[in-house]
Amino acid sequence: MGSLGAYAKKHKVAIIGSGNWGTTIAKVIAENTAENADLFEKDIQMWVFEEQVTVPKSSSSYDPGSELSTKPQDLTFLINKLHENVKYLPGVPLPKNIHANPSIESTVKDATILIFNLPHQFIAKSCESIKGKVLPFARGVSCIKGVEVSDQGIELFSESIGRKLGIYCGALSGANIATEVALEKWSETTVAYDPPTMDSRHPTPKGSPRQSIDINVSEAGEIALDRGEKKKPKLTPLPSEYPPLSHENMKKLFHRPYFHVRMVDDVAGVSLGGALKNVVALAAGWVDGLGWGDNAKAAVMRVGIMEEVKFGKMFFQESVKTETFTEESCGVADMITSCSGGRNFRCAKLSITKKKSIEEVEAEELNGQKLQGTSTAHEVNSFLKTKGMEGEFPLFTAVSNILQGKNKPEDIPQLLEGKTT
Amino acid sequence: MGSLGAYAKKHKVAIIGSGNWGTTIAKVIAENTAENADLFEKDIQMWVFEEQVTVPKSSSSYDPGSELSTKPQDLTFLINKLHENVKYLPGVPLPKNIHANPSIESTVKDATILIFNLPHQFIAKSCESIKGKVLPFARGVSCIKGVEVSDQGIELFSESIGRKLGIYCGALSGANIATEVALEKWSETTVAYDPPTMDSRHPTPKGSPRQSIDINVSEAGEIALDRGEKKKPKLTPLPSEYPPLSHENMKKLFHRPYFHVRMVDDVAGVSLGGALKNVVALAAGWVDGLGWGDNAKAAVMRVGIMEEVKFGKMFFQESVKTETFTEESCGVADMITSCSGGRNFRCAKLSITKKKSIEEVEAEELNGQKLQGTSTAHEVNSFLKTKGMEGEFPLFTAVSNILQGKNKPEDIPQLLEGKTT
Repeated sequence: MGSLGAYAKKHKVAIIGSGNWGTTIAKVIAENTAENADLFEKDIQMWVFEEQVTVPKSSSSYDPGSELSTKPQDLTFLINKLHENVKYLPGVPLPKNIHANPSIESTVKDATILIFNLPHQFIAKSCESIKGKVLPFARGVSCIKGVEVSDQGIELFSESIGRKLGIYCGALSGANIATEVALEKWSETTVAYDPPTMDSRHPTPKGSPRQSIDINVSEAGEIALDRGEKKKPKLTPLPSEYPPLSHENMKKLFHRPYFHVRMVDDVAGVSLGGALKNVVALAAGWVDGLGWGDNAKAAVMRVGIMEEVKFGKMFFQESVKTETFTEESCGVADMITSCSGGRNFRCAKLSITKKKSIEEVEAEELNGQKLQGTSTAHEVNSFLKTKGMEGEFPLFTAVSNILQGKNKPEDIPQLLEGKTT
Repeated sequence: MGSLGAYAKKHKVAIIGSGNWGTTIAKVIAENTAENADLFEKDIQMWVFEEQVTVPKSSSSYDPGSELSTKPQDLTFLINKLHENVKYLPGVPLPKNIHANPSIESTVKDATILIFNLPHQFIAKSCESIKGKVLPFARGVSCIKGVEVSDQGIELFSESIGRKLGIYCGALSGANIATEVALEKWSETTVAYDPPTMDSRHPTPKGSPRQSIDINVSEAGEIALDRGEKKKPKLTPLPSEYPPLSHENMKKLFHRPYFHVRMVDDVAGVSLGGALKNVVALAAGWVDGLGWGDNAKAAVMRVGIMEEVKFGKMFFQESVKTETFTEESCGVADMITSCSGGRNFRCAKLSITKKKSIEEVEAEELNGQKLQGTSTAHEVNSFLKTKGMEGEFPLFTAVSNILQGKNKPEDIPQLLEGKTT
């Protein structure tokens, strides 16, 4: 226990994004900044994309006699007045120390910790708005699930944020559904955080060799496939007036009695698990739809976890650890959840039981939303093809081939036989 | 590929046990001995505890006009005439090279491979009957799930079989339900096989360091807790007229297109997973019954897998590997299956939703059968208490305390907080 009172400054937290998951994480963090006054400023700013809304019936503040429920108001005004995100997280009271802010620039001003939690298609534009306006020594954590895969390579959202802003960015991912966490139903999550500058001030605990994801600040968009070649980024060190952003202190920002956090170093592994599980969930759904039982489904999941490990080690080399996939919430637990009731699993299963194409099921079931699993499966396959490595990933390749009509779900055992790692 | 035709003798396989799972494994093996004539004698003997039965309606051989369906006959006679185990696996055609044998002594005569697949309470008596009557260089594989835990220590069934007969015995365990495997629904399994004598004839493949479970042949029943102290057993080497029992050849005995086998060395890990998952399944059932959602359930499973690893490493030391629990069918996949629809999971869940004790649910639901999870939880807890290590295993301890009424299922997150590995 260091004497934290000795630090002249406290960390200021900004949340970029205020949807379902963004607001939930803001709630978690606001509860923690209030409880850890030695480390963090109690008040946190949350950037809200401004829109006009009326308080809906699902909100605990709904009152048909009130103007708020009949006349559209600014969402930020409603959040700050009612302490509830009536549009994206209705019914959940928010701590009063969350301040909804319609200006992204003002949200991030003086913040030492930036939490990114918005749909991935808004990352580029949001980073553009705040580039050069964040503290040079700020640290980020991306709660955005998934990775971007293309023929050119794989990019983590944390990487693109870090590169665009010239800061370090870690990642949070786990077997979490926003609404359940918001309702304080117990779950676990994984936070990957390992800035190169941690080295100088916070020696690694024994037995956990640290490896950093390289953020190639100089590279403007092109991601090298051979990450081993990258040089270490130059990051501005955290000034010594601030408490260190060690694993211990970062954990205090996220951990709640209902939201158990495990800290790891492996940002790539944490991010990959959240993306690749959706591909596996399709296969699990097909096998379940065929009536092959829980054991066949468990076999698909086991093979899927092992292909995730192989994929991570092959394309992110030394930074990815097997345990991230096999032992952490972001890996095995998220896989289990996604293959239990996730939408990729459900739609794939329905495509078998209803004898329809997965696109038809998607259109019928998802109300205009798109399945992550099918697009990730195509992207991963296209990437593997350019590397000539389809054969090394029999399950990922099987899913892609089935989606393309080249194979049937019934072929899965034969496609895996003798090829699984 | 060695020139296997060069061996003067072939392996002869005997199956000890003919229940649901025993008959299923006999079917799997008989299909494989027929297909691998260079390694195995085609015909296999299956010991059947003789009883008088009539062919039931569920059998494909049922015929109300036939004497077989009206007058009780020897079960061995029916199996050998109808090629169907009409009592324990009705409706599934068996290969004709399975020979039901009412004499356990004659079943094992000249057999080089003994497959043990009977209820664990019959192990002692069965081994007593064949002691001194098996080939001294025979090798065993136990398909009996679980381990025996008492205050004195933990004994694997493979160990007690090996000790009683003076032979090496490996283990098979996986996410398998007998009926599904019998119906050729696809699943995976894990076979642990690593006799000390493999060393001399079959060098270990690169990258997989081998470690042996010690079988202390001289010890007559008492199991040392500190397994590191044990000396290597003296086993009779397999004569060179027989094809080697390498992983490659053992796999050929079990692997089918619908039953994918992975070979490992870790007999203790394979056996422990099959026992300890039942304890975890109770906690998963409670959490699910509370309506906490898939994420809470996945968190319980993740913590459970990690406690299995810790338990194995602590009490079986160098022989147990993390991967056996995190990467194999006998570990993570069996955990997933047991926490999906297994009876421990179901009864624990019902105890919450019906607001009844688990004993009441057990009596109502299981038709006189007993839950494995509750007895294993008590045994493990009693063992951990004698070692003063309850605190090291917060989930196992929570399950035991909840069963004893000292805690409630609602306490699980708090009981795990800050204590999970």
